[in-house]
This record gives sequence, C-alpha cells and structure tokens, in this order.
Amino acid sequence: MCELLGMSANVPTDICFSFTALALRGGRTGPHKDGWGITFYEGKGCRTFKDPQPSHSSPIARLVREYPIKSCAVVSHVRQANRGAVSLENTHPFTRELWGRNWTFAHNGQLEGYLSLPTGRYCPVGQTDSEYAFCWLLHRLQERYPTEPESAAELFRFIADCADALRERGVFNMLLSDGRYVMAYCSTHLHWITRRAPFGKATLVDEDVAIDFQAETTPNDVVSVIATQPLTCDESWQRIAPGEYVLFCLGERQA
Amino acid sequence: MCELLGMSANVPTDICFSFTALALRGGRTGPHKDGWGITFYEGKGCRTFKDPQPSHSSPIARLVREYPIKSCAVVSHVRQANRGAVSLENTHPFTRELWGRNWTFAHNGQLEGYLSLPTGRYCPVGQTDSEYAFCWLLHRLQERYPTEPESAAELFRFIADCADALRERGVFNMLLSDGRYVMAYCSTHLHWITRRAPFGKATLVDEDVAIDFQAETTPNDVVSVIATQPLTCDESWQRIAPGEYVLFCLGERQA
Repeated sequence: MCELLGMSANVPTDICFSFTALALRGGRTGPHKDGWGITFYEGKGCRTFKDPQPSHSSPIARLVREYPIKSCAVVSHVRQANRGAVSLENTHPFTRELWGRNWTFAHNGQLEGYLSLPTGRYCPVGQTDSEYAFCWLLHRLQERYPTEPESAAELFRFIADCADALRERGVFNMLLSDGRYVMAYCSTHLHWITRRAPFGKATLVDEDVAIDFQAETTPNDVVSVIATQPLTCDESWQRIAPGEYVLFCLGERQA
Repeated sequence: MCELLGMSANVPTDICFSFTALALRGGRTGPHKDGWGITFYEGKGCRTFKDPQPSHSSPIARLVREYPIKSCAVVSHVRQANRGAVSLENTHPFTRELWGRNWTFAHNGQLEGYLSLPTGRYCPVGQTDSEYAFCWLLHRLQERYPTEPESAAELFRFIADCADALRERGVFNMLLSDGRYVMAYCSTHLHWITRRAPFGKATLVDEDVAIDFQAETTPNDVVSVIATQPLTCDESWQRIAPGEYVLFCLGERQA
C-alpha cells in the first residue's frame, strides 16, 4: 500500500511540515520505500517532483522538505509497490490534461481486472493499476462531458460514482485535483483536518517535530490537509467513511 | 527569445555541466529571466523541474546543477517571455502523452496566427504560442498516425513537415523527445556536438568552468548535446541550417 497527502488552502501555503511526516514514512517510519511524488499547483500550471528512490533519503525530497513552495492545491504520494515495477513511469502522482486543465491523481490501494477498463484517448504510459484507473476515469469524464460542466458539485458526484465502480475491483483511496478543487475519495483509510484561526500548535506523529501555525499564518488563512493516517498527534482529524468523499476548494470543504 | 538545451546519450549521463551554462543565461549572462525548465527521461517515465523564477537564482535550478540526475534523453529551456505571462503554466518544457509515451517539447521563437491552429483533443493549458503549436503538432500526429508508426525515420520526417508549416508563421526552433529520440528543428539558431572517445576537455563560454570529460565517462559513451548557441569555447559545434533538423537516438545522429 501507499500513503496519500493532499492540501487545499485559500492562500498559497507551503506543505513542508506535513511532507516531512510523509517523507519519513517513505522508508524510515513506514515501509513506503518505492518512490514518492508531489504536485504543486500555481494557477493553472503545476509542477511535480518525483523520485523512484525512497523519500527519506532522496535529495529531491530534501529540497521539497526544506524549500517552501507555496500552493493552494497539492497532491502527494509515497509508494509501496504492488502492481508495476519501481520506476519513474510508475511513480505517482500522474497528471493529464482535460478541458484545458491539468488533472492530478494519486491512488492508494490495489485493483483487480483493471486491464479490461477502456481508456479511450488516455493511454497509460506505465504499468500500474493506478494510472490505468486514472486514464479510465478521464476517459469516462470526457465521454460524459465533452466540455467542462458548469456545476462542480455535479462533476465531482459523477467522479465519485466512477470511484464507487473502481472500489468494486479492490481498494481505491484517491486524491484528485484540477488545481482549484481537491477531492479525497475513501475506500479504506483517509483522514482530513481544516486549520483556521485561532491557530494552535501541532506535533508530528512520526518525529519529534512541532509547529506553531500561529507564527506561520494570517488570521484569514484556511488550510485543509488530507492524509491516509493523521499526521499529528495533538489535533482532531476527521475520518472519511469508506465509499464517501470530501471535496475542498480554497481550503473550505464543499461536500 | 529563449534558449534551448537538449541531450541524447547511450548511457544515462548527467547534464550538470551544460545546464550550468544554460542556467547562467537565465538572468545573469543572458536575458532569459522569465523561468526555466528541464525534463529528464528514465525509461518511459520522465520528470520535469521547472520554475517561473530566473534560473540563475532558483533553488530548484541549483539542485539540478548540483545533483547529477542521469538520463539518456533531456530537454531544457530558459525563457524570455514574449507571448503569455510569466507563470508556471507558460513555462517550458511541455509534456503530453501520445501512443502511450510521454512527448516533451520546448520552443524558441515567436509565431503569428497560432490561435487558428486546430488542436483537436490536445487543449492548451497556458497562453503561449509554444504550447499551442505543440498541441497542434500532437493533433496532427494523432490524425496522421492513429497508432504509432513503425518507421521512426518516417515519423520524424512528418514532424519536420509540420515544423516547416509552423516556421511559415514566424520563428520556430524546437526540441522534441519521446524519451528515445531527441529531435532538434532549426528555424534560426541551433547547434549540436557529439562527444565520444577519445574524450577531451571543454570550457564553458559563460563562466570559467572547465570539465575533463575523460574523467567522467567510459570509452563507450556517446553523448550528443544540442543548444541554441555553442556552450563551450574550445570544441567544434555543428550549426543546423534553417529549415533542417537533426535526430538523435542513444547519442548517435540518425538524420
């Protein structure tokens, strides 16, 4: 299995604190040594740092931990390979264009029978069930909505229906973003938290690292974080029920 | 205008030396301060580092200069914006999937009338003439070859025909790669060099940095580098004539 990390914020916010926890699980406090990746949106653009090396020892992961890249939408993943070799083309997140937007996807779980899913114009590059599922999802979206639908609520409900279908084939925890929205679909384990004023302090579960969010934020900041398991030991994380999803936009929960 | 840098090699090779020159032109020895990017292939996978900040001062560019990422196919670009704002979505290289492969594109030049080019299923995300031209090119490829053609020579001749058509709309110097082939199409300025045994020494034009390739290579290595302007002052670079292209695979020139 793998671990997921996502963020949605109303002002560009760095994710160094949370990524530190995730990166440690990539081969040190966790077994997810088979690569890692993180995608930061800035406007309609996005950039992905990824490495098939374990995140706890990757020089690129160190840059991401230490250099605060600020973003309103982030999707990240550390991998423990099941389907597909340890290689760059099998390293999440995956990004593809739909309706002139970059869509970014990361998956935790394992699917059966995924090779029979039609993917239309979206051809997988690597060998993972995850990228296959992503291509199928985009193909379904593009068939259902040749142009971008007006209602985001309707769009993400349709995506959740597609995710329900994938969940019938195995375990399918997913993070998905188009740079504005960050969606978390839960099959087994996903948690989230929204931080807003008055900000407090928090301590990582994985290492004796604490942060005082008050010192890092302004009173208007709203920042939601999604993770497979809670990343801090002194805050109240919400569990997403299996088969449910949460949707964030600019830090606020939409659904 | 912008500067391009590409590499094709028969063994995974780092590009730190050449990228150092390019990065300096990004705001210090050259005016290309409006962002930079570099794509490294590893197998069918690729990863891109990009930043809308000037490359000479970007912490991410410093990582790329100092951390040797080894690859057999690299495409890089430093930008001086003309069409499209300075933003991440307008920062080259651009990567899209075709036939289950990642295609990566970078452009130096400026095109007129590009908004009338049909792009089919490839919708631009940003506002540059460059990404528009790339989307049109992929659309043309996918129309002409619904599945990947067997002959790479034929494929790249067709791509060159498309590039000829773009050159009629302005200046169109291009680097294009699918991870195996690296193609350089020249509209005004592009140079290349192939290094092989016996390897010698070389000194950068832009800074007093020298390298002894003999110490960095094995006798079987073949490495070709493509750049807008020669990067070293003591080697013989070949100029590509306007309207011509060169194609490399695993370091060796194919056409």
